[in-house]
Amino acid sequence: MNKISKAVVSRLPRYYRYLDELRQENIERISSKELSKRMNVTASQIRQDLNNFGGFGQQGYGYNVQYLYEEIGKLLGLNVTHKMVIVGAGNLGQAIANYGNFRNRGFEITALFDKNPELIGKDTAGGKVLDIKYLYDYVKENNVEIVALTLPKEPAQKIAEKLVECGIKAFWNFAHTDLGVSGDIIVENVHLSESLMKLTYRISEKNNSLNK
Amino acid sequence: MNKISKAVVSRLPRYYRYLDELRQENIERISSKELSKRMNVTASQIRQDLNNFGGFGQQGYGYNVQYLYEEIGKLLGLNVTHKMVIVGAGNLGQAIANYGNFRNRGFEITALFDKNPELIGKDTAGGKVLDIKYLYDYVKENNVEIVALTLPKEPAQKIAEKLVECGIKAFWNFAHTDLGVSGDIIVENVHLSESLMKLTYRISEKNNSLNK
Repeated sequence: MNKISKAVVSRLPRYYRYLDELRQENIERISSKELSKRMNVTASQIRQDLNNFGGFGQQGYGYNVQYLYEEIGKLLGLNVTHKMVIVGAGNLGQAIANYGNFRNRGFEITALFDKNPELIGKDTAGGKVLDIKYLYDYVKENNVEIVALTLPKEPAQKIAEKLVECGIKAFWNFAHTDLGVSGDIIVENVHLSESLMKLTYRISEKNNSLNK
Repeated sequence: MNKISKAVVSRLPRYYRYLDELRQENIERISSKELSKRMNVTASQIRQDLNNFGGFGQQGYGYNVQYLYEEIGKLLGLNVTHKMVIVGAGNLGQAIANYGNFRNRGFEITALFDKNPELIGKDTAGGKVLDIKYLYDYVKENNVEIVALTLPKEPAQKIAEKLVECGIKAFWNFAHTDLGVSGDIIVENVHLSESLMKLTYRISEKNNSLNK
C-alpha cells in the first residue's frame, strides 16, 4: 500500500463514524452520491479518498457499508486492542475514562494516575486512580501502548520523557505544549484552547465582513 | 485583507502559543530562523504564513515578539471578550469550565447547564450549574455568544437547533456528531474519538512498516 496523505488519513475517522451510523440504521449499501449528501462533501472526493485503499466500491453498485466500515476500522488500527493509561485524573482525565465509546472500539483503559491524594483510590470507568509514583513500573509490567496526558504542560514534558525511557511509543497529548520527544515517538495532540481560538477567528472574520 | 487560507488559520493559534512562551521568557525579538527551530517548521513557511497579514517582520531584524503576539491575538479575536456557556456539566464540561487559560484569554464562562439534579446547583470555576430549562432564556438575556456542547449527540443536535432560534451563532461542539445547522452558523468541532483514531492509524502504519 502506498503512503496515504495526511489529509486523507485525517478524514478516515469521519468516514468511519458515518458508516457506523449507516450500519446502525441497517443500511447495507450506499452510493458515493448518497454518502456525499450525508457527509456534506463531494462524491468525487469520497471516490478519490477511498480509491487510496483499493476502492471498495463497484460502479453502479455502491459501497457495501459493513465491509467498508470494517476495512476502514482495520486501517485505523481498531481491529486490535490498545492498552491505554491516563496520566492526570482531573475532570478531563475522568471524562476520557468515562467515555464509553472508547471501550467499544478496542481501547482498554486500565488505570489513571495522579499525585493528588484526594483522587488516588477513586474508582472510575477506566479503573482505579493510582499514585503517580507507580506509573513507570505499571506501564512496563502491563504492556501499556498509549499514554493519555491530561495534565499541565510542565509535568507533562518531564513525565513523557520518563515514559519514553520506559518504552512508551505513543502519546495522546492534551497538555498545552508540543511534547519534545524524539521523532519516532507518535504524538497526537488535542489542544483545546487552539480549537477555541479557531472558533473566535471565524467569529471575528465574520463580524469584520459584516461591518464592511 | 485577503481571505486567509484555512491551513494558515489553523496554524495561527500555534504561533500565538509560541509567542506567548517567548514573551514569558522576556525575549523581545526573534528571527524566522530561530522561531522555525523552536516550532519545528521551516523558516520559509513562517515567513509565508505571516506575510498573509502584512509581514510584521523586517529583513535582518526579526519579529518583535510582543507586537506579533498582540497582532495575532487580534486576528484570533482575542482582543474582545467572548461570553460562553457550557451545556453538559459532566466531567468534560467541568474540565473546560476549570481551564484557567480560557479566562485569561478573554473568554468569560458565565454558567453551565445540565438536566442532572445531582449537578444542578454545583459551583464550578465557570459559575453555577443551572437547570437546562433556563438555558434558552439565559442566552437571550445575557448576550451569550458561544455555546460549548459537552453532551451526547442526540440531545446536542436538538439543543443546538433551539439555540440557533435564540440567536446563537457559534458552537464549540464536543458531541460525537456534525451538527446539522445552517451554513452561516459557526461550528468548531472537537471529536475526541477521531483524534484517538488518528493516533492508532499511525501506530498501525508504523507496525506494518516494521513488519515488512
